[in-house]
Amino acid sequence: MKKIITLTTDFGLTDSYVGVMKGVILSINEDASIVDITHDVNSHSIIPAAYILNSSYKYFPPKSVHVVVVDPGVGSDRRAVLLCADNHYFIGPDNGVFSNIYKSNPDYELYELENSKYFLEPVSNTFHGRDIFSPCAAYLSSGVKPDQFGKKIVNPVIEEFPDYYKQDGLIRGSIAYIDKFGNLITNIPSDIVDDSALITVGKTEIKGVSAFYSTTAEGEILAIKGSSGYLEISVNKGSAKRYIGIEDVEIRVEN
Amino acid sequence: MKKIITLTTDFGLTDSYVGVMKGVILSINEDASIVDITHDVNSHSIIPAAYILNSSYKYFPPKSVHVVVVDPGVGSDRRAVLLCADNHYFIGPDNGVFSNIYKSNPDYELYELENSKYFLEPVSNTFHGRDIFSPCAAYLSSGVKPDQFGKKIVNPVIEEFPDYYKQDGLIRGSIAYIDKFGNLITNIPSDIVDDSALITVGKTEIKGVSAFYSTTAEGEILAIKGSSGYLEISVNKGSAKRYIGIEDVEIRVEN
Amino acid sequence: MKKIITLTTDFGLTDSYVGVMKGVILSINEDASIVDITHDVNSHSIIPAAYILNSSYKYFPPKSVHVVVVDPGVGSDRRAVLLCADNHYFIGPDNGVFSNIYKSNPDYELYELENSKYFLEPVSNTFHGRDIFSPCAAYLSSGVKPDQFGKKIVNPVIEEFPDYYKQDGLIRGSIAYIDKFGNLITNIPSDIVDDSALITVGKTEIKGVSAFYSTTAEGEILAIKGSSGYLEISVNKGSAKRYIGIEDVEIRVEN
Repeated sequence: MKKIITLTTDFGLTDSYVGVMKGVILSINEDASIVDITHDVNSHSIIPAAYILNSSYKYFPPKSVHVVVVDPGVGSDRRAVLLCADNHYFIGPDNGVFSNIYKSNPDYELYELENSKYFLEPVSNTFHGRDIFSPCAAYLSSGVKPDQFGKKIVNPVIEEFPDYYKQDGLIRGSIAYIDKFGNLITNIPSDIVDDSALITVGKTEIKGVSAFYSTTAEGEILAIKGSSGYLEISVNKGSAKRYIGIEDVEIRVEN
Repeated sequence: MKKIITLTTDFGLTDSYVGVMKGVILSINEDASIVDITHDVNSHSIIPAAYILNSSYKYFPPKSVHVVVVDPGVGSDRRAVLLCADNHYFIGPDNGVFSNIYKSNPDYELYELENSKYFLEPVSNTFHGRDIFSPCAAYLSSGVKPDQFGKKIVNPVIEEFPDYYKQDGLIRGSIAYIDKFGNLITNIPSDIVDDSALITVGKTEIKGVSAFYSTTAEGEILAIKGSSGYLEISVNKGSAKRYIGIEDVEIRVEN
Repeated sequence: MKKIITLTTDFGLTDSYVGVMKGVILSINEDASIVDITHDVNSHSIIPAAYILNSSYKYFPPKSVHVVVVDPGVGSDRRAVLLCADNHYFIGPDNGVFSNIYKSNPDYELYELENSKYFLEPVSNTFHGRDIFSPCAAYLSSGVKPDQFGKKIVNPVIEEFPDYYKQDGLIRGSIAYIDKFGNLITNIPSDIVDDSALITVGKTEIKGVSAFYSTTAEGEILAIKGSSGYLEISVNKGSAKRYIGIEDVEIRVEN
């Protein structure tokens, strides 16, 4: 079976960093099928990178290799890791980008990437995406076993994500991610929200959950059970981000 | 022969939506060769999506599958369709994105995508790109026959595009598309424009058609027979969009 | 072995130009593995295109074909060329985009692309990326020999890049490239800079070279031996471009 390597970085597409990573991968495994998840993570932003990875990796075939390079600590003593979890592989810095994966898969196995046999030498102190993560991903996709890359380790860096809480029929949550349409994706699972719930976003009240965007008039705000499995706040043919105005608001759901 | 699946969406590349679609496709057909046409169609803008698709699909091999997801009506009762025309396949919402294809290929065949066997379940109401269009494209590229996806249908949504008109040697047209260089691509076919024609763009007069951009001085406006087969207004090493200032201008050609 | 074709253009990703080039390539060689280096070169900017190409092509397997389309002179009498150098192939306009390759590889061989058998007819005067460079790259990757495309030529256009100079222990250089993080990549090779050197960027003094970004506090400026082999000026979790304010500054190194 063809091996897929996905890339999630904050490198952008203007420079050649992403192209160079692909060159390194294809020089080691010409049959790798490389898929970009995104390269537009905000520079050095670990939480959104973790969110994006966690909400997308499951859509790839088992045994895919997911490389994440959002790595402000590159060159320091932060570890480089290979994570085996949920029948997928994850490669990147040990800085919290895999936080959700650890939590959802407590039986994960974690290895430190330390066998320089699989590095692109000389290893720079600024671009481990090219020198460590890409070549290790390529060798892994070529059949090298996880324990060949280094010793098993524990205690990875795990970031805490804000959780929703529920009390007396009231659910309080927050915005986990805002997409390019301006949809506000909350951290409240859709399945605990009644279709008739009263939803409050900052000072804006929304009555009931819409079945789809175009049930409301253009430019009107609505709540919807989003494709990610969480409650989303949207504007039909518009931007809820712009409609609401501020990004750091509480979401309240009264069922 | 390897099967090509092209993607044209308004999803942008910042979120993981496009990566997820590719994961879904490769999970079904690992040999699919996926090519991005663009993901930067203006949000919810059907006319530019139709223009982009129509001006690019012919450059792909016969039997390529072209997926278009510009879909403000997602989740509503707008139909999801598979269009067979001009020896290519087109998959997307029935909202006008295939308008030009229908017009140029009156012998087209159209099927509704309704066989949930080829969907990614559960189907969301906000992301049919992931749940319906991508998996159907992948199954089609794997050999599933068009009539397996649903019944043959008629009367698709067709948007009217502004046409040029010609009277007494005067051609009046408009701007069909503006590209990233600021080139104004008109709806006037190059082959009806004489090389010596007087071309008027709003209040700007251009005498004659240039053979190539650098025939004029840097920063100067020119008319040229563009690569799309239509008359284009350009500025040598500059932007005609910025030069002309307004986007909604009439183009007049006096041969 | 699978043939890789890389693309470096100023076409952006909003229009369909890049997708169309890929369609043309795959129509000729369905097995070509196409990799984007970048499509965000500043419009018509030959020097950055040359920099990007030169700093990335070596990371691809030998015999890769590198297509560059930054081509303000398209349609004029500027030549279209195939360059064989350093065991790689380069295809693009003869306008200076290959300047560094010529200089580093004086034993290069250069051919004019003039055999219309390998063009996509009719050849436009505005989009040789589609009509000449992509099809020639695809045929080359399919096994057509370089001398089939046209006659051997000499005297390509070579742009002069500003060089650093060294006098009495003082090195004076300049900024060669600024990346999306705002890192200032200089033209001073890292290996001639002492770790304890005093580095002056415009009016800003930096004492010593840092081993990695996070040795300094967030927001602080630093000098570092970059992944490209040159001295770089960076800000930990910030932008040196914004920190320094102006782009055209002299870099001084006192070892």
